[in-house]
Amino acid sequence: MIRLWVPQDLAAGAVVEPGRDQAHYLVNVMRLAAGAELALFNGRDGEWRATVTEASKRACRLAVAARLRDQATTPDLDLVIALVKRGRLETIVEKAAELGARRVRLAITERTNADHARVDRLRAIATEASEQTGRLDVPEVLEPVKLDRLLAELEGEGRRLMFCDEAGDAGPAAAVLSGAGPGAWAILIGPEGGFSPAERARIRAIGAAVPVSLGPRILRADTAAIAAMTLWQAAMGDWAA
Amino acid sequence: MIRLWVPQDLAAGAVVEPGRDQAHYLVNVMRLAAGAELALFNGRDGEWRATVTEASKRACRLAVAARLRDQATTPDLDLVIALVKRGRLETIVEKAAELGARRVRLAITERTNADHARVDRLRAIATEASEQTGRLDVPEVLEPVKLDRLLAELEGEGRRLMFCDEAGDAGPAAAVLSGAGPGAWAILIGPEGGFSPAERARIRAIGAAVPVSLGPRILRADTAAIAAMTLWQAAMGDWAA
Repeated sequence: MIRLWVPQDLAAGAVVEPGRDQAHYLVNVMRLAAGAELALFNGRDGEWRATVTEASKRACRLAVAARLRDQATTPDLDLVIALVKRGRLETIVEKAAELGARRVRLAITERTNADHARVDRLRAIATEASEQTGRLDVPEVLEPVKLDRLLAELEGEGRRLMFCDEAGDAGPAAAVLSGAGPGAWAILIGPEGGFSPAERARIRAIGAAVPVSLGPRILRADTAAIAAMTLWQAAMGDWAA
Repeated sequence: MIRLWVPQDLAAGAVVEPGRDQAHYLVNVMRLAAGAELALFNGRDGEWRATVTEASKRACRLAVAARLRDQATTPDLDLVIALVKRGRLETIVEKAAELGARRVRLAITERTNADHARVDRLRAIATEASEQTGRLDVPEVLEPVKLDRLLAELEGEGRRLMFCDEAGDAGPAAAVLSGAGPGAWAILIGPEGGFSPAERARIRAIGAAVPVSLGPRILRADTAAIAAMTLWQAAMGDWAA
C-alpha cells in the first residue's frame, strides 16, 4: 500500500487534497483511480487508511477512513553531519530517515568545501524515504550552520554527543555505548578529511561528548553515519528490544 | 599518500609496472612525477612504500622500497546479497570493502528481477574502495548464482548465516550476535521485496542459520547490508577490540 506524508490534520471523515507533486504522483505515476486505498501520516496523528474519491487532471481528493496505527515517537536522536558532496549528503539523509533519526543538522566545518546545501531537496528525500521505511514522522532537516554555533546549540539542549573520532584513541563504539544511558543524543560525523585539530579539541572538551571508534578502516562520511546510527539504535534506540 | 592495489609480488627492490588504467591514473590524473612516493598492496605481502622511477606517456615504473605494514587478514565474513538495482549494488560492494567483508557473493532469488551483474565493474569498485579505506586486501566479488546453489556452498563451507529476516520474529541482531561465537560467517540480505516464503523456510531450516532483526523500520537492501556488517564487526569482527 502506498504511504504518503501530508501536512494536513488526519481524522476519520477528513478530506485531504494532496499538493500538486503528490497528486501527480498518485494519479499519473501510480495511476490510482477513485476507490483505491492508501495510507496517510503527518507526524502527529498516527497512520490512517484513506480512499481516493477523485483522481482527475483537475483534482485529487482523499477521504480519510480509519486509523491504522497510533502515533509513536522516534528516539530522540540527532544526526550532525558536516556538509559533504551532494550525492553522499543525499544518501545520508535517506539513511537517517530509514534508521530512525529524528533530526538532521548540517554543519559547516573548517574542512567543509561547501557552505550551502539544497535543503528543500534534502527535505523531499527525507519525506520520500520516511514514506517507504514505514515510519510515522519525517526527520527534520535543518539549515547548515557553523560548527561552533551548532555545538553550542547541542550543549544548550543537554544532548550527549556520540563523537565518531577517527583520529583518536577512543574505545569501540558498541562497548562504549553499552555503558551509556539513553536520553537525548546527537551523532557527530566529520567531513571527508576529518575535523581539524582545533575542532577535535573543542568537541572533546564538551562534557557530554562520548568519543567512539568505528573500527580500524577509514570510512567515508556516509558509511560512518550509517554505522553510527545502527550502533546507537542497537545500544539504546528502538532496535534494542 | 596514494594507495594502489597491484597484482604483482611485492618485495624490497621489486619493480612494478602498473596496468594501463592505473598508469593513466597516476601520471595523468594525479600527476605523479619521478620521485613521488605511494603505497602498494596486493593482498598477500603487506603494504609497501614505492617510488615512481618513470612517469611518461610511454611508461610508468614503480620501485618498491620498504614494507610499511605486515599483511593482516580480514575477518572471515562473506556478504551474500541478492541482485538489486545497479546503483544500490555498487554502493553495497563499496561498503563491503569499507566495512571489511572478505567476499561478496551475489544471489539470484525468486524476486530478483535481474540475472546478471557487471561483475568486472563491481570488482573495480571493490578495488578502489579498498585502496581508499586502508585495508590490505580486496574483497572477492563472485559471479551471481542461484540462491539454492549458494546456500549449498555456504553449508559446505560450514559457515554460520546471519539471516536478516524482515518477515519474522527474530531477536535484535546485536543481542543475538553477542551470544554467538566467532568463526566463518555469511550475512544474508534479501532483494527489495524480500525472500519468498519458500526461500525463507529453506534458509531457516539450515542448522547454521541465525535469524536476526534489524529494527522496526523497512530498510532498503544497501542500508540493511551496511547495518548488518556494522553489527557483525562490532560483535565479533575487528571492531570489537
